[in-house]
Amino acid sequence: MLAGTLHAAPKDTTIPAPAIDTAVQLRETALASDLGYRITESLTTEVGQRLAGSEADARAVAWAKAKFEELGYDKVWTEPVTFPKWERRSESAQVLGPHSQSLAITALGGSPGGTVTGEVVRFADLAALEAAPAGSLDGKIAFIDYKMERARDGSGYGPGSRTRSGGPSAAIRAGAIGYVMRSAGTDSHRNPHTGITRFDEGLTPIPSAALAAPDADQLTRLLALGKPIELKLALDVGWNGEATSYNVIGEITGSSKPDEVVLIGGHLDSWDLGTGAIDDGAGVGLTMAAGKLIGDLETAPARSIRVVAFANEEQGLHGGKAYAEAHADELEQHQIAAESDFGAGRIYAFSTGAPEYAQGAAKTIAQVLAPLGIEFAGDAGGPGPDLSPFAADGMAWARLAQDGTDYFDYHHTPDDTFDKIDPEALAQNVAAYAVFAYLAASADGDFGSKPADGDTAGD
Amino acid sequence: MLAGTLHAAPKDTTIPAPAIDTAVQLRETALASDLGYRITESLTTEVGQRLAGSEADARAVAWAKAKFEELGYDKVWTEPVTFPKWERRSESAQVLGPHSQSLAITALGGSPGGTVTGEVVRFADLAALEAAPAGSLDGKIAFIDYKMERARDGSGYGPGSRTRSGGPSAAIRAGAIGYVMRSAGTDSHRNPHTGITRFDEGLTPIPSAALAAPDADQLTRLLALGKPIELKLALDVGWNGEATSYNVIGEITGSSKPDEVVLIGGHLDSWDLGTGAIDDGAGVGLTMAAGKLIGDLETAPARSIRVVAFANEEQGLHGGKAYAEAHADELEQHQIAAESDFGAGRIYAFSTGAPEYAQGAAKTIAQVLAPLGIEFAGDAGGPGPDLSPFAADGMAWARLAQDGTDYFDYHHTPDDTFDKIDPEALAQNVAAYAVFAYLAASADGDFGSKPADGDTAGD
Repeated sequence: MLAGTLHAAPKDTTIPAPAIDTAVQLRETALASDLGYRITESLTTEVGQRLAGSEADARAVAWAKAKFEELGYDKVWTEPVTFPKWERRSESAQVLGPHSQSLAITALGGSPGGTVTGEVVRFADLAALEAAPAGSLDGKIAFIDYKMERARDGSGYGPGSRTRSGGPSAAIRAGAIGYVMRSAGTDSHRNPHTGITRFDEGLTPIPSAALAAPDADQLTRLLALGKPIELKLALDVGWNGEATSYNVIGEITGSSKPDEVVLIGGHLDSWDLGTGAIDDGAGVGLTMAAGKLIGDLETAPARSIRVVAFANEEQGLHGGKAYAEAHADELEQHQIAAESDFGAGRIYAFSTGAPEYAQGAAKTIAQVLAPLGIEFAGDAGGPGPDLSPFAADGMAWARLAQDGTDYFDYHHTPDDTFDKIDPEALAQNVAAYAVFAYLAASADGDFGSKPADGDTAGD
Repeated sequence: MLAGTLHAAPKDTTIPAPAIDTAVQLRETALASDLGYRITESLTTEVGQRLAGSEADARAVAWAKAKFEELGYDKVWTEPVTFPKWERRSESAQVLGPHSQSLAITALGGSPGGTVTGEVVRFADLAALEAAPAGSLDGKIAFIDYKMERARDGSGYGPGSRTRSGGPSAAIRAGAIGYVMRSAGTDSHRNPHTGITRFDEGLTPIPSAALAAPDADQLTRLLALGKPIELKLALDVGWNGEATSYNVIGEITGSSKPDEVVLIGGHLDSWDLGTGAIDDGAGVGLTMAAGKLIGDLETAPARSIRVVAFANEEQGLHGGKAYAEAHADELEQHQIAAESDFGAGRIYAFSTGAPEYAQGAAKTIAQVLAPLGIEFAGDAGGPGPDLSPFAADGMAWARLAQDGTDYFDYHHTPDDTFDKIDPEALAQNVAAYAVFAYLAASADGDFGSKPADGDTAGD
């Protein structure tokens, strides 16, 4: 097809009535099932943490492949994802001098190793550090004490994560030899929150870490005593070559349009401090369960249901990028996709970026979701992280928004463990994903996936 | 006086009306003051953790002496307390084999160091482990998975702490080479609870540790997979000679009976994981503040107010025992004593073991406490831990019972930090201790302190 060819206006996408009846049944079956909870338990117990590229990550890949097979998926395969490997070996922080004491910290992902000792200079937020003149922090350790806000939709994480991603480079520009920040989190426990950071081109990376909230409080109180506070930050961490992991994929074959897929999933990797239960064992477990329950139906939906357990989301969406690249030619076959990567709280809203002609179908899906306490929220939000590369290329996305009020109490901490998951909330998630995927896979008409520049794939 | 001499029945102890008026004023002054909160902040910030016998413990002693002086106490002194010194250097636990993962643990105080690897055998509670036949755990690691109950009065800690103190010896008798237990706590965070343990005479101590609650859950799930689970427990901890610390004492001199004292206090040492804010920085801070507020009155009460910051409570009431020994000859001069060592929650009850003739005075005290939400509870409870040796010798005690509903969420964990203290609750505590101490020091008549065998001291 030539570039610039006009497409005819598509017919409205609709959902056949029998599919709605089946989806209502499926919803109730899912609500009564603990399958998603049990799959999440299996992953987080049998594998535990699974830092991308680690030995445990390889075990997680084997686990996911075996689990898809055990659940009776029609096709199960893996796709390689290669990325730089980051390792954490040890980390500590010690206030020196008359108030000598250790502080609970964790290195930010991507931080180099190294031991630095310097006076701590506190900043209220990233903007304040960015305003520090070059040379003003020579030989010192920058400390951003920004407190992230709690919100159902996780909106407080925007400035929280920017403090993590942008703080180290701002510190380097001002001359700092180390960087510490109040964790991007909403709890008050001695469990610091890790997460990836980066360093701008041309800067020499410095050891960078997050303090647990009580330790950020403590450091602030120590500074308020009015005398210089010297901190020793010792990180044995860093990049160490390359690793290859895998996107693990299971598919329930569609009954009449098997080459068209509705994609759901989560990410298989986790940070190393907890066991990655809410981030993102739950996302993997609940979408695997949703696919399995669809597979258990007497008749599969028209399209295939593809469940993807993405590799290495945490360190830069490596699995999502690899998927988009590997499947670039099949973009339009991906009818619509939704990723679960915001914990294990109840879903309260459904939205989609699908075009006008598919909004009727979206509203039909919303009606079947409504008894789960889920409202229709138009085109609010966006695709999940691992879907964002492919969505940027033009894949249609849906969002099943989870209540993240407590998510950042546990996110990226040692406290991200299976006991934090409410089985009833997880069953509600499974029901919502099953309904969405089944109905989208049963729709007459599409949800608008097409190359973002208006060209079809393969031009 | 000859042993066995009959004492005449004492007159009823009463409290003069002007003292009640002053106590009402004192209560309101204390409620409006943040002094106790600020003292606790100072200790936990400037010193941080203060494991008995550590360098930080010595700093805490210096801090307490300086703080009493800064607060204008009439007399400030220290009394030496010598005890075996226990050190924690490093600790880890790793599940080996196909489910390899680390578990969050902390050595129990008094545990020997050592690295042991063995199959884990789970027991529901201490009684179940005690029933294990000799030899049945040869080469294995015993695991007690007992869940402590939450209660306002902390009553769940009885079986919880017995699991800690009795578990290791029971494990050794069955042949175990290591001991792990679900922490004696009520939270669900990755923060294990330490605390002292002991080993029965004649047994060779084994490495002994507590798992954080989520890790006890995890180990239980791993065992439920039905195959042997091997654990490597590596503790670099242990006894290391003797140390001398100090009971630090401040006194407000009584106006007419300065040799008679009403004693209040807390303990200065803490475990090393947190900063000892609720255990027992708060107890030290609030009783120091109560004494200071009494010292600020135009006229001191008849008797002296003695505030004691006891040394090394955590590892065996060493400070309390040393105090009882050092002051054995002055038992009857100690009119009555109350220790705060149950966190920083609001006080809900006042009780005393004082004899019948002092109950009227106790009720008068209770009436002044009542507006603080404190009820009179007769002779319920007993003396605080550091007072128990002297109370066993015959010193009269009072109890200002704190709401400990959340106490065991933080107790002996890294999470015992200053941010866990509610300043208003702490002010209520200061008010209660000030009222109690002032009125007891103003009473006509005593509260029944006398040698427990009926003999007066010095016989």
